[in-house]
Amino acid sequence: MERKEISKSVLKRLPGYLSYLKSLPEGSATYISATALANALGMGEVQVRKDLAMVCDGGRPKIGYLRERLIEDISQFLGYDNTTDAILIGAGKLGQALLGYGGFEAYGLNILAAFDAAPIAEQTQEGKPIYHISQLESFCRANNVLMGIITVPAMHAQQVCQQLIDNGIKAIWNFAPTHLDVPSNILVQNENMATSLAVLSMHLQAQIKEKK
Amino acid sequence: MERKEISKSVLKRLPGYLSYLKSLPEGSATYISATALANALGMGEVQVRKDLAMVCDGGRPKIGYLRERLIEDISQFLGYDNTTDAILIGAGKLGQALLGYGGFEAYGLNILAAFDAAPIAEQTQEGKPIYHISQLESFCRANNVLMGIITVPAMHAQQVCQQLIDNGIKAIWNFAPTHLDVPSNILVQNENMATSLAVLSMHLQAQIKEKK
Repeated sequence: MERKEISKSVLKRLPGYLSYLKSLPEGSATYISATALANALGMGEVQVRKDLAMVCDGGRPKIGYLRERLIEDISQFLGYDNTTDAILIGAGKLGQALLGYGGFEAYGLNILAAFDAAPIAEQTQEGKPIYHISQLESFCRANNVLMGIITVPAMHAQQVCQQLIDNGIKAIWNFAPTHLDVPSNILVQNENMATSLAVLSMHLQAQIKEKK
Repeated sequence: MERKEISKSVLKRLPGYLSYLKSLPEGSATYISATALANALGMGEVQVRKDLAMVCDGGRPKIGYLRERLIEDISQFLGYDNTTDAILIGAGKLGQALLGYGGFEAYGLNILAAFDAAPIAEQTQEGKPIYHISQLESFCRANNVLMGIITVPAMHAQQVCQQLIDNGIKAIWNFAPTHLDVPSNILVQNENMATSLAVLSMHLQAQIKEKK
């Protein structure tokens, strides 16, 4: 089917449908209705129907969607079935936690290697190689990598970002708590855990004050 | 000083300043100017000055801010110096990666224990306990925990969220790719890595198509 323009809010809900559909046991019914999906996820039926219409040809009236087909359609739409190779820069604690997290493969992400200005080991516990940052250029050229994950301290992030772009990276997943300046053809997705923690912590402080 | 209302965009930049200030070597100058900070982080001087004015008494003209004091003020403002105890629900791969990440202490987060519906071990490699979910209530009561981290599959997230709230949790860090319904006094901070990956992957697909 033709690919429609999709809003970010739909994009945010799709992984939830997918996760639910995949979690159903082997012997589940072949078809699933929008109503059943809506009920299971505590969402509105109309919204579920509209969201699914964005990514797959409508379900059959009174029967619903072919479950396996729906899983395929959403996965394909989200790009989870195209494996994307990525490299990670900054093999500190967060970088190593991400390298060690085996769950990204399900989302089509394959972290090939990590780079660090001062690698403390040649590879991670899981056997992923950690190279010196000076090897970035030759590695990117040899492996045609398009995605980079930044897990260096904030003050080094812009410099690392520029190095990635210079070596052909087009999409950057930024875990450093800082803004990155990039040309318009480069996408930066920020994952600011420090900010999240600050927001949560502020909320708790306010709650504790209220109680007093 | 009196606490001012602060915008989310300022809140997003503060961890960047803090990370830079902390990274300066031991023997660095006692004072640092807004200009120096702005240059180091590639930001506008006026913005840096305004941001810092929100969290600390202004620096001295032509001299700047007392570095150690600035670190203290930002940390205190962000709540990083109040350690917050948290529990984590869902000791799968992502949960274990977070449990194993030693970097949260710097942000004032202390994960006491993990809970799972089917714990595969009694503790993590790092020695954090993993309990059966049935022990949640007694643990929360005994430890007065206010923050919960959700790393279960999407379809179980709402139920887990309700259990946390029933046990006194006021702030939830949600890593499950789904929306959570909560009362107005509960704060949910979503960290949707699956969505981030989908956004990045879509950008790459579009770039690859353009090239063809």
